[in-house]
Amino acid sequence: MPYAIGVDLGGTHLRAVRLDQAGQIHAHQRVATAAMDGPAAVIAQIEQLIAQVVGDIDSSKIIGIGVASPGPVDLRAGIARQAPTIQGWFDVPLRAILSERTGFRVELNNDGHVAALGEWRFGSGRGCEHFVYVTISTGIGGGVIMDGKLLLGRHGMAAEVGHMTIQPDGPVCCCGNQGCWEALASGSALAQFAAQELARGYPSVIAEIAAGAPLSGAHVAVAAEQGDALALTLMQREGEWIGIGLANLLHLYAPDRIALGGGVIQSMALLEPHIRRVIAERAMPPFRDIPFHVAQLGDNAGVIGAATLVL
Amino acid sequence: MPYAIGVDLGGTHLRAVRLDQAGQIHAHQRVATAAMDGPAAVIAQIEQLIAQVVGDIDSSKIIGIGVASPGPVDLRAGIARQAPTIQGWFDVPLRAILSERTGFRVELNNDGHVAALGEWRFGSGRGCEHFVYVTISTGIGGGVIMDGKLLLGRHGMAAEVGHMTIQPDGPVCCCGNQGCWEALASGSALAQFAAQELARGYPSVIAEIAAGAPLSGAHVAVAAEQGDALALTLMQREGEWIGIGLANLLHLYAPDRIALGGGVIQSMALLEPHIRRVIAERAMPPFRDIPFHVAQLGDNAGVIGAATLVL
Repeated sequence: MPYAIGVDLGGTHLRAVRLDQAGQIHAHQRVATAAMDGPAAVIAQIEQLIAQVVGDIDSSKIIGIGVASPGPVDLRAGIARQAPTIQGWFDVPLRAILSERTGFRVELNNDGHVAALGEWRFGSGRGCEHFVYVTISTGIGGGVIMDGKLLLGRHGMAAEVGHMTIQPDGPVCCCGNQGCWEALASGSALAQFAAQELARGYPSVIAEIAAGAPLSGAHVAVAAEQGDALALTLMQREGEWIGIGLANLLHLYAPDRIALGGGVIQSMALLEPHIRRVIAERAMPPFRDIPFHVAQLGDNAGVIGAATLVL
Repeated sequence: MPYAIGVDLGGTHLRAVRLDQAGQIHAHQRVATAAMDGPAAVIAQIEQLIAQVVGDIDSSKIIGIGVASPGPVDLRAGIARQAPTIQGWFDVPLRAILSERTGFRVELNNDGHVAALGEWRFGSGRGCEHFVYVTISTGIGGGVIMDGKLLLGRHGMAAEVGHMTIQPDGPVCCCGNQGCWEALASGSALAQFAAQELARGYPSVIAEIAAGAPLSGAHVAVAAEQGDALALTLMQREGEWIGIGLANLLHLYAPDRIALGGGVIQSMALLEPHIRRVIAERAMPPFRDIPFHVAQLGDNAGVIGAATLVL
């Protein structure tokens, strides 16, 4: 049976899988990314993970290696231009390095695109002609399939969905702009809004749940599940901001379906009524019934999508 | 020489051309749309225009007829679902009607998509792999070419660019939503902002230029060209709103180029510095140098694009 190797170059974890053509995982490895040790150390880790998931499979049965890289990727040259989460990672010719060291064909793409591809091929996007995948966690990223193909645009830069402006005088985003979707609806934004309200002395169990750790969106979600009034209000606003961004994506891409992944979406039950209401208010009638779902592959969307780059 | 016939079903004017494969216009007709007389009257006008631009050319030399229709179009069924500008126009099976009456092959598409196609094939988008066309006049519409193909999405509804929300509590749009790009940056929005400022008693020559006629964006532009302070401020804001929307389109589609058409863009000299500044402030670095231009085909983008539907 032929296999594809997928590698997901995450800022926290490196993941690798050996996948068959039906999307079944036959080997899976994960390791903490040596992000502070620079590119050479991380590439050595990748090599080792690949060797582990290949195992004693005959190399003639390996179709190739697909790699999901954070940040911009030069598709033609196979260069991972910048991985903001890895110290000193600039313009690494990862395709050439890995194909030389492993002897396999190597394909590289941006992690948002790749996760969209994984969800479309083997997860919540199966059977769609047009599909949008959005991941809402620390930041907001995603990828788009149109006419059964990844929407890449100039240098593969399309679908930078987290950085559309949806409130021109909104909070400053990590990209420098104000009021990006990411600055309003990411898990980090949720944590920041919570911190602001707590600083104003609004009574809430959020701080107690955080117990001294830096506030995160997950703390707000836990408090909301316990019925905390402030947390419920914050989750309502979170759902509304998600809904505004999704309504925009509906109008711009007109997909058959949207799938949502990432940590924030674990609280879908709390968010969904607000997302749904905002879409009904803001989307034009023919766009309102386009379904949105929780993505199915979870943390594996990237690594499975990476393998599909060579399938 | 083979020819394609293009028809543009505008709310004010019907246009038809006979185009050769190099994009040269060999016959051109225009008539005021009998918009209040209903679909049957308008279809009779279209037939007559087609007969005029075909003239005495042998029918074997006519490749077919392409039609640009306002509002949503069912591409597979060839039905113009709604033409908001024409009284009583709902679900008109225009492809079947016109092909039966003329004997030619007929293709139908939305006017924004079609104008994008015209500009890409024969105007400001020539040679681009990825191209975005935006028209800013009474409303805001457009179309997108990705990988050398029209981006259609589900039922051909993609690229409804005017209805992305860019200020959630902004002015109410004709679609019912608040803060659509169209409600902030269209010519109608510009006129409305001007009316609000004048109502506040802000001194300006705008009212004098309008001379009792309903205010339009063009009156503001003329006043700005005369150095009127209020009009200059309004044109600055207009450029800023255009820039915010364009920065979003850059991130979402990553085109090689954007072309801008429509009445408002006739004041490009006044708008350009503000558009440029906002894109520099809001777009991430790799998107900032994507050029934007004034579209080349003017009012003929739709009718030329329509003809290219059958080329």
